[in-house]
Amino acid sequence: MLDIKAIVFDLYGTLFDVHSVATACEAVAPGRGMELSQLWRQKQLEYTWLRSMMGQYLSFEQATADALDYCVARLGLPADAGQRATLCDAYLALQPHAEVPAALQELNRRGIPLGILSNGSVRSIAAVVGNAGLAERFRHLLSVEPVQVFKPDPRVYALGEDAFGLGRQHILFVSSNAWDATGAGHFGYPTCWVNRNGANTFECMGSRPTLEVRGIDAILASDAWRLAA
Amino acid sequence: MLDIKAIVFDLYGTLFDVHSVATACEAVAPGRGMELSQLWRQKQLEYTWLRSMMGQYLSFEQATADALDYCVARLGLPADAGQRATLCDAYLALQPHAEVPAALQELNRRGIPLGILSNGSVRSIAAVVGNAGLAERFRHLLSVEPVQVFKPDPRVYALGEDAFGLGRQHILFVSSNAWDATGAGHFGYPTCWVNRNGANTFECMGSRPTLEVRGIDAILASDAWRLAA
Repeated sequence: MLDIKAIVFDLYGTLFDVHSVATACEAVAPGRGMELSQLWRQKQLEYTWLRSMMGQYLSFEQATADALDYCVARLGLPADAGQRATLCDAYLALQPHAEVPAALQELNRRGIPLGILSNGSVRSIAAVVGNAGLAERFRHLLSVEPVQVFKPDPRVYALGEDAFGLGRQHILFVSSNAWDATGAGHFGYPTCWVNRNGANTFECMGSRPTLEVRGIDAILASDAWRLAA
Repeated sequence: MLDIKAIVFDLYGTLFDVHSVATACEAVAPGRGMELSQLWRQKQLEYTWLRSMMGQYLSFEQATADALDYCVARLGLPADAGQRATLCDAYLALQPHAEVPAALQELNRRGIPLGILSNGSVRSIAAVVGNAGLAERFRHLLSVEPVQVFKPDPRVYALGEDAFGLGRQHILFVSSNAWDATGAGHFGYPTCWVNRNGANTFECMGSRPTLEVRGIDAILASDAWRLAA
């Protein structure tokens, strides 16, 4: 049985719903808000991967803004600079998934140290977590900024191990992004894949998640590990 | 004016139509052949990027087969191992785009050295080019195999410069994949983006193509450069 002494969460998509921005998207693209939101998310990720590979790192916020520029051009939307800024700001006020606040509170109560490891900048992570009133739940808010490369580069995953001062086998890495769980698994973390609607398909890249759950509350109930600080 | 002394082409999508496999896909997924073909191509690319970032390189053929496994699971297709192998084999018999054979012949006639720089393995590149009867058109068929990482890592683009023994400013890099043209541009090649149907949108990642064309025959007519061996 795994001996889990800390839990590190992905931020975007895992604790917070990236499609919270769909409402703001709908205002800019009536009838096409979810289409814009989905394409924007896809491009945002592609730009983090491609920028990393090209050695052309820039902040997650800038990658997000660049991805929006692409989407606006591709979908032929009449979105001016002000509207684009409003959309990008919506990424700082994402809503947590429904089960998240209570599950984090219970993990706190049990004394398990929690962290976030995110592509976002230090500033963005603090804004998103703070806007949701969840800042006090976490011991470490870890950004990729120090390593200037995005997930799934192994230098990013090493930040969690370094911050907690624990061997990777004792840190549970939790992500709803299958490619992120795959990267964390190749790095050596036990992984929990949050397949929230149960309809997603895990990636076929040589690593399977240790556990698949429907929401992060299931972490508390699993017999795949022992949770103890 | 640019002084172009050699031309390096991307293979998949640029000289050859990756959606040639849609017919084979249609046989496996009746009524959904193009949907499968498009998702498969998207996942194939994602797997090359993510595998590169994770330091988990494998051959392009294996990434292609893994991407197909994902697609079959996600789309819920009843495709057995034999059908999957048939689909993967279709990637070795892609059709060249219509204007390609004559344009390559004319570039040969003018004495411009040509090359291919592709994510594919040595074996796959030879098979695709050979099946189309185009092997004699190229001085160099360059695979990512020696560097064990995929595009757009700069180590891949350096293979073209090394093979031709020319400074990068004298090598025109031609791709229909906007992310590939972006990577080549960041590396320092003059770039030609083949926007074949004219409806694609270039990526917003800090590099614009030197020239945008509708087909590779337009390379011969451009006044953006002088072509001379």
